[in-house]
Amino acid sequence: MEGYDVIVIGGGPAGFLASRLVKKRYGKRVLLIKKEEKTLIPCAIPYIPATLKTIDKDFLPEGPLMDAGVEILVDEVIEIDRERKIILTTGGKTIKYEKLILATGSIPSLPPIKGIELCIPIGKDYDSVKKLIEEVSKAESVTIIGGGPVGVEICEDLLNLGKKVRIIEVLPHILQTVFDTEFSQIVEEKLKREGVEIMVNTKVKEVIEKDGKKVLILEDGKEVKTDCVIVATGTRPNIELAKKCGLETQEAIKVDERMRTSDENIFAIGDCAEKKDFLTGKPKRVMLASTACMEAVVASENLYEESDIKMKGVLGTFVTKFKDLVLGATGYTETFAKREKLDVISGSFETMDKHPPSLPNSHPVKVKLTFTKEGRIIGGQIAGSFTTTHMINMISLLVENNYSINDVLSMQFASQPWLTPAPTVFPIIRAALDAKRKLGMW
Amino acid sequence: MEGYDVIVIGGGPAGFLASRLVKKRYGKRVLLIKKEEKTLIPCAIPYIPATLKTIDKDFLPEGPLMDAGVEILVDEVIEIDRERKIILTTGGKTIKYEKLILATGSIPSLPPIKGIELCIPIGKDYDSVKKLIEEVSKAESVTIIGGGPVGVEICEDLLNLGKKVRIIEVLPHILQTVFDTEFSQIVEEKLKREGVEIMVNTKVKEVIEKDGKKVLILEDGKEVKTDCVIVATGTRPNIELAKKCGLETQEAIKVDERMRTSDENIFAIGDCAEKKDFLTGKPKRVMLASTACMEAVVASENLYEESDIKMKGVLGTFVTKFKDLVLGATGYTETFAKREKLDVISGSFETMDKHPPSLPNSHPVKVKLTFTKEGRIIGGQIAGSFTTTHMINMISLLVENNYSINDVLSMQFASQPWLTPAPTVFPIIRAALDAKRKLGMW
Repeated sequence: MEGYDVIVIGGGPAGFLASRLVKKRYGKRVLLIKKEEKTLIPCAIPYIPATLKTIDKDFLPEGPLMDAGVEILVDEVIEIDRERKIILTTGGKTIKYEKLILATGSIPSLPPIKGIELCIPIGKDYDSVKKLIEEVSKAESVTIIGGGPVGVEICEDLLNLGKKVRIIEVLPHILQTVFDTEFSQIVEEKLKREGVEIMVNTKVKEVIEKDGKKVLILEDGKEVKTDCVIVATGTRPNIELAKKCGLETQEAIKVDERMRTSDENIFAIGDCAEKKDFLTGKPKRVMLASTACMEAVVASENLYEESDIKMKGVLGTFVTKFKDLVLGATGYTETFAKREKLDVISGSFETMDKHPPSLPNSHPVKVKLTFTKEGRIIGGQIAGSFTTTHMINMISLLVENNYSINDVLSMQFASQPWLTPAPTVFPIIRAALDAKRKLGMW
Repeated sequence: MEGYDVIVIGGGPAGFLASRLVKKRYGKRVLLIKKEEKTLIPCAIPYIPATLKTIDKDFLPEGPLMDAGVEILVDEVIEIDRERKIILTTGGKTIKYEKLILATGSIPSLPPIKGIELCIPIGKDYDSVKKLIEEVSKAESVTIIGGGPVGVEICEDLLNLGKKVRIIEVLPHILQTVFDTEFSQIVEEKLKREGVEIMVNTKVKEVIEKDGKKVLILEDGKEVKTDCVIVATGTRPNIELAKKCGLETQEAIKVDERMRTSDENIFAIGDCAEKKDFLTGKPKRVMLASTACMEAVVASENLYEESDIKMKGVLGTFVTKFKDLVLGATGYTETFAKREKLDVISGSFETMDKHPPSLPNSHPVKVKLTFTKEGRIIGGQIAGSFTTTHMINMISLLVENNYSINDVLSMQFASQPWLTPAPTVFPIIRAALDAKRKLGMW
């Protein structure tokens, strides 16, 4: 029987990185099994319609895997026999493994809407994306169900194609699950200025086809006509294979801090693996390629013996954009903290992203930091422009390192006229001072 | 006699921020004394000639100070009587203080070149900058003596004005004091591609005037003609006032970790105050507005009673740019570490700054991290594009928090197609893996 030291199932970012790292680190025989010949870079799918124009520009390159000596099998694993340590594929193969890494990713999570099959979910496989592009190319108007980051990102690209775009969100605000209201409002205003129709607090009950158009029937009975409906309501962990072979699962595959499943020879990484909140340790749904890649590093470092590289609880640090508005968040929003019954205080500051602001293309940037009552930073949000990424990644590290307000105030950072706000009004420092005053520490 | 609770001397970023913070925090009577009516934002001076076009667009706004209730006196302090706690000004004023904050900044450090008075130093006062702009506006060709960050920044702006620009550097490489050679070479290649003439290993002996031109006579006897010579060879702490009143000084004003001078009622912040290296604790020359502003926070928090906000040793985190090439560094370069007899290892990685790289305007980005032999990160360097700032500010926080290689490998960060490299090849992670392999830890 054919056999490998390590088999990685799933060709997305986590599987891609893990197979490469494992091969490079241990020099063992590594097989990556993936369903499709060509794997898409998932994060850039929203930018295929207008920016990349063709799916071919969004392939995860296989060169680095081949160069490293990873073998690749395009096939689907349908069963894992944990006792005999073998996997079975649709293609009829039976392959032995010593260590197995599950990186089976996530699949679109569709809302319970009648006629949902008339809509196009944002899948990650070639055929889904191909269908998405074909459908939007024919449409004049597109309706996106779901105002999360992916919905907002694809909205930008569709506007660039000249489409008329509408976003329907069931919650009271766009991006509500990841931002406090004042940040959602910044996005909503920007979307409206760019001509996007936004319907919040709006639930779609049914989708029907009528005179070549799609008609969305809303819960209040109103009807909305459109040429094409995209569903961007998030994804859920793809854990079928894990469940079938008896691994412990809940919403996702249970893993320890070394990404080991309930079977010590099987690791799970990426969207299919359970994440834990950095403060409470409770399971948390986070679907980010950056987190998936970190888990790939952790799994590969712990595959054969325990390393001190472990997963801390996830912060869910992310950044997204709509046109020239860049938005980021990490850790807890104030809303989320309050829902978790945490006693928190937030500080905010708004300034311009260049200094002096008379430099061309200066944009406003707003930072909000959230602290516990003891003054420990537990989250941050930013709305700004292209210079914003550095600040959200800084705040992420401040949260990761349990910075107190005073630590924040004496942190070191770089500033430059074109690249950052002025150091005199550096918004992370100023937001921390605002919080300190509110905490009565000033 | 007129008197204030707190007098701040110097209107640059440090004095500006300190006076505002002290006023807001304590509500005391605060007087800011500055030499000039209008204070320039120093970091943006290189961008006045072509980008801002007029000095007026580079003023540090007084509004925030007035709003806070800081009083402003345009005058020059010529003496500090520490015993009687009064200051004397050129304008004949005698003013009492309870606490004094010196933010007297730095002044151009001119090399010992005969005829240097024919050249224009990059000063920070209105008249110097006005003269600079007048002189370059008349010139067709400009020669910059000094290939440090300021020289390279003003070079960009002069190119935008259509000038023919030459940089003369006495060391073997441009930006040599802040980068390892491979990064200097990236800048040199870019400068050359943009038409800049670079003369390294070149010492100017004398400058003379001949037929309306400036002639630079080099140490090897060669002569170089130009319309205008700018001197960008750095600055030195302005400590005259401090010396005169007997405060402890060396190259800069001696301060403790709370920015207190040898007189407990006098604090010193910004370029005039001594900085200490974060690893060795030895004095280190760092002239950065971001560091100055951090010191302003530290001083204002410690002015009346000891706070736990203290200066850690400085990392010298900075970022600069030339056209679309953005460069950053923090902590120790490999060169500097070796000069300090530290046993270090570096890891490097190069990738593209967007993902997929088929997105428009993708640029290469190179990251180098330097670790002690025990695997503690002590520095990092980056050459990339506009998405680079976030990574240098991340590395700065990794160094500030004594990250081990393993800590780096499991850090959390945000990634997004337009805003960062792919998470699968995130260059900080990959450079750390490269270092880990070299350390034999892989």
